[in-house]
Amino acid sequence: MNINGKPTRTIWPVDNRSAVAIIDQTALPHLYRTLTLRNVADVARAIRDMQVRGAPLIGVAAAYGVALAMSANPGDTSLHQAVSTLAATRPTAVNLHWALQRMRAHLAALPNAERVSSAWAEAGCIAEEDVACNRAIGEHGLALLKPLAHGKPRLNVMTHCNAGWLATVDRGTALAPVYAACEAGLDVHVWVSETRPRNQGLLTAWELRQHGVPHTVIADNAAGWLMLRGEVDAVIVGADRVAANGDVANKVGTLLKALAAQTAALPFFVAAPSSTIDFTCPTGTDIPIESRDGEELRQVAGLDSGGAMAQLRQLPAGTPVTNPAFDVTPAALVSALICERGACAASAAGIATLFPESRHA
Amino acid sequence: MNINGKPTRTIWPVDNRSAVAIIDQTALPHLYRTLTLRNVADVARAIRDMQVRGAPLIGVAAAYGVALAMSANPGDTSLHQAVSTLAATRPTAVNLHWALQRMRAHLAALPNAERVSSAWAEAGCIAEEDVACNRAIGEHGLALLKPLAHGKPRLNVMTHCNAGWLATVDRGTALAPVYAACEAGLDVHVWVSETRPRNQGLLTAWELRQHGVPHTVIADNAAGWLMLRGEVDAVIVGADRVAANGDVANKVGTLLKALAAQTAALPFFVAAPSSTIDFTCPTGTDIPIESRDGEELRQVAGLDSGGAMAQLRQLPAGTPVTNPAFDVTPAALVSALICERGACAASAAGIATLFPESRHA
Repeated sequence: MNINGKPTRTIWPVDNRSAVAIIDQTALPHLYRTLTLRNVADVARAIRDMQVRGAPLIGVAAAYGVALAMSANPGDTSLHQAVSTLAATRPTAVNLHWALQRMRAHLAALPNAERVSSAWAEAGCIAEEDVACNRAIGEHGLALLKPLAHGKPRLNVMTHCNAGWLATVDRGTALAPVYAACEAGLDVHVWVSETRPRNQGLLTAWELRQHGVPHTVIADNAAGWLMLRGEVDAVIVGADRVAANGDVANKVGTLLKALAAQTAALPFFVAAPSSTIDFTCPTGTDIPIESRDGEELRQVAGLDSGGAMAQLRQLPAGTPVTNPAFDVTPAALVSALICERGACAASAAGIATLFPESRHA
Repeated sequence: MNINGKPTRTIWPVDNRSAVAIIDQTALPHLYRTLTLRNVADVARAIRDMQVRGAPLIGVAAAYGVALAMSANPGDTSLHQAVSTLAATRPTAVNLHWALQRMRAHLAALPNAERVSSAWAEAGCIAEEDVACNRAIGEHGLALLKPLAHGKPRLNVMTHCNAGWLATVDRGTALAPVYAACEAGLDVHVWVSETRPRNQGLLTAWELRQHGVPHTVIADNAAGWLMLRGEVDAVIVGADRVAANGDVANKVGTLLKALAAQTAALPFFVAAPSSTIDFTCPTGTDIPIESRDGEELRQVAGLDSGGAMAQLRQLPAGTPVTNPAFDVTPAALVSALICERGACAASAAGIATLFPESRHA
């Protein structure tokens, strides 16, 4: 997609494949800057600190992390250490483990002399496949949105967190159908929930603005009211892990939107590539849910007594906080999973219609 | 209730009834300070800027605003202007209109010479009645909490926004049963949602801390996950207006919690004095919902790239925002209304069992 009109991806090899560049997503939307990652530790830190985030992008970043490790030392110990260091960064998004497993299986079979170039090639393949998957998700999602737009002056889509192109290598998952709809000439408006505590909704607002897609930012708290008032036609979110039964782990707050969508009789779509489906994970209760540092919640923005000037404030020291990063939306609340092969019911049987080869994974 | 162990209310007459003092709630929890309001304009601004907030407290502040107007000029024009200025400050909380209507009806019947002392006396009565109502709400709520606590080491209550003593003259509405439970020796823990965009959850955390009540602050987004995981035994919120059919307008985000409570089969209680019930308002769709300035949403707290230092950031200029301050929870999602006369079903029939004299209001 574009930044200031210039085509850009979220991650790319640089310096003759001795490093990878990323967009620093902790600086957006306030500042656009890139960072150069030169080794496994750099990549692990960038994932943990959320300089790269979004399940698909985390997977690709980890694959490039393995390539950097191979450039430094293509031996078995180096490979093993790189995989275990990167696997320990964040627990919920399964794409991370999927990509690491793929890199390890690919490289372990090769002699050391072939591992460096093959690692960079395989990481590049994973990145290209991500873009292709997301393009397909966009088209399949568009097919679901078109009937909803029929007869309406404008289609109102609500999303949560950022599952746009910034969360992937390009195109996005939840936002891929939105971009496809815009390119097809539909008038689409996106409700963007700010997504406390890390405010990834602002990334969504930023990328939609870069592409001229009409949007409005809301407090997370306002989502239910807008849906029940009829201001929303569909909800589309991404996923960090889909269990084999169709339960969906995604950014905390997704569950509340799914419940409101059910009550408002609105379609609630989950868009994700098959690398996000964990066929070994029976149900949502088996998905590990990351608990993040309470510091994220301790920082609050306030207005001064005049209601005008902004102030940064902190919770009083000693105030306990709990900060789960994800929640699990039961499959029954999901109208459809949108994957690269099409849309299906959020159930083992539904998923098997698209991925029959994985039925006995 | 107490501040640093010293008994305090949220509003009180000062300077021989020539002014009223309030706690500046926009400075809390970071700074405790009081403000002195000397005329109607001071009171109107304090309500509009949320230096006083909470439906019951807004009503009492407005009553004292009328008393200040009478002290300045007890004539009919002064009375009329004070009432209309104060009525225009905030649209949703009906206690404001209830208190102004009561003051006007009381004073209009009196000669000017009696209006000053009578206005102060009547405002004082409204304040005292608020405290008495909240004490009763606490006892009736405790009767509902006790069976839920039975056999559990700790009772986990979730609340939203601040409906504690800071939202009233004293004791609170939603938190009155919590304080009553603590005083009765129950081990109660409160989940406090931060309540973006104005973070009134931090007021709740502050007052619970002053009274040693165990509590944990969460992002608004985490509420559904905690309920479905079994970490919550009951939800109690306040109300800004209850329609005649039992629909409840309260701080935006209340609806999402009510939906999650329904799915988790948890009791969802609304605690409010009868002055919050609008018998002239048939249903929730008839309640005016305040849209607040988008500036409240434009201010966000972020972490820097290292994930450590806090920064105050703003949405990019030109990013559209929508900022409803309240939402409406359908009566069907409310397990019980807890009023000063007892608990009842959230329905016209249920309300009539407690307030039969208001059936044909």
